[in-house]
Amino acid sequence: MAGEIEARLKALDLTLPEVASPLANYVPFLHINNQLFISGQLPMRDGAAVTGKLGDTVSVEDGAKAAELCLFNILAQAKAALRDLDRIEQCLQLTGYVNAAPDFTDHPKVINGASDLMVEILGNKGRHTRAAVGCSSLPLGACVEIGAIFAIE
Amino acid sequence: MAGEIEARLKALDLTLPEVASPLANYVPFLHINNQLFISGQLPMRDGAAVTGKLGDTVSVEDGAKAAELCLFNILAQAKAALRDLDRIEQCLQLTGYVNAAPDFTDHPKVINGASDLMVEILGNKGRHTRAAVGCSSLPLGACVEIGAIFAIE
Amino acid sequence: MAGEIEARLKALDLTLPEVASPLANYVPFLHINNQLFISGQLPMRDGAAVTGKLGDTVSVEDGAKAAELCLFNILAQAKAALRDLDRIEQCLQLTGYVNAAPDFTDHPKVINGASDLMVEILGNKGRHTRAAVGCSSLPLGACVEIGAIFAIE
Repeated sequence: MAGEIEARLKALDLTLPEVASPLANYVPFLHINNQLFISGQLPMRDGAAVTGKLGDTVSVEDGAKAAELCLFNILAQAKAALRDLDRIEQCLQLTGYVNAAPDFTDHPKVINGASDLMVEILGNKGRHTRAAVGCSSLPLGACVEIGAIFAIE
Repeated sequence: MAGEIEARLKALDLTLPEVASPLANYVPFLHINNQLFISGQLPMRDGAAVTGKLGDTVSVEDGAKAAELCLFNILAQAKAALRDLDRIEQCLQLTGYVNAAPDFTDHPKVINGASDLMVEILGNKGRHTRAAVGCSSLPLGACVEIGAIFAIE
Repeated sequence: MAGEIEARLKALDLTLPEVASPLANYVPFLHINNQLFISGQLPMRDGAAVTGKLGDTVSVEDGAKAAELCLFNILAQAKAALRDLDRIEQCLQLTGYVNAAPDFTDHPKVINGASDLMVEILGNKGRHTRAAVGCSSLPLGACVEIGAIFAIE
């Protein structure tokens, strides 16, 4: 059945956002040779990034919600690239960059916002490898940025 | 001959650790289409991460030893994925994240702990591309985190 | 026609630098199975890295010029790997690490130095996905480091 993932999005009452434009001279996605690369996505909401620093001005809970926004944008870019999200064979890798204070330690709980939602939407195809690390700062002051690589059927 | 790399591990008197469980809703490895992705591995020893910050509370020497622990965990995950480490064609990429103070400059010497050990164990198949960068903080307060991609025969 | 990209480099009056040696026990590039991985390149000029921190001692303009130097080194490594840059099918991914103060927000403008030059030299084949993030510090005190993955014909 086509549209399986679209149906799950509807069942979860989730709507993918409009795709965000790159901030510069690059592209949001490339699909070549069975792999789909997605540029680092920021937690864009209503055209602005959710800003702040974990371990300082942003709570782990709010950071996880921002990571969900990054994941929505990743899937929106994947849909723009593939038209049909059912073509995803597997999410291979998420790289989660957390805008974090020097003594912050809960990066995994922040990026879980993206990982959990990915698995909720894509099922086993959404189970990915990942790295979660702390950045001194991020573009636009965003509190999190996440890049992705998918395997495509 | 099968088990060539296992034999080298024995000759070096090295034992791979038990694989570490992911800290969240993701998987430690994915092997698809001749590539093996390994999640970012922390310097786990006896169930706890080696913590601290390079350029502050951790010396370059101790950071390099922590990077060796990351590499052991990477190879343990690779073995869990492949059963036989001889199936590795090449380590394509290590990404080395160093928990580092703002004025630290010796990231390469830290990640060398992993790079040198990789080549010692895998020989030319262990010669990888890499990036070594400084992070403001890392999960669990770990002093280093390393992710990897392998080409598989 | 062979040498199309070399011809464009000449038309732009650009000369690729001598390839920089790795700072440790790893390799600058690996070309396997239609992908070319390039190690993180620093802004080397006359054998020394351009140093400093964005949002502190380095301006966005000077950071962008340093990113250009990283890109030159990436292409020099690609040429050393492929002999002929025309074999590049597409630049798949740039990962741009900016040595940045905690309140810096213009990482995209810095990495644009590399992205713009890539597209100027490679045309549409140079249009890549990318992430741009802030690092607490970088090897040798460099102000920027950029890694790359290319698809090869």
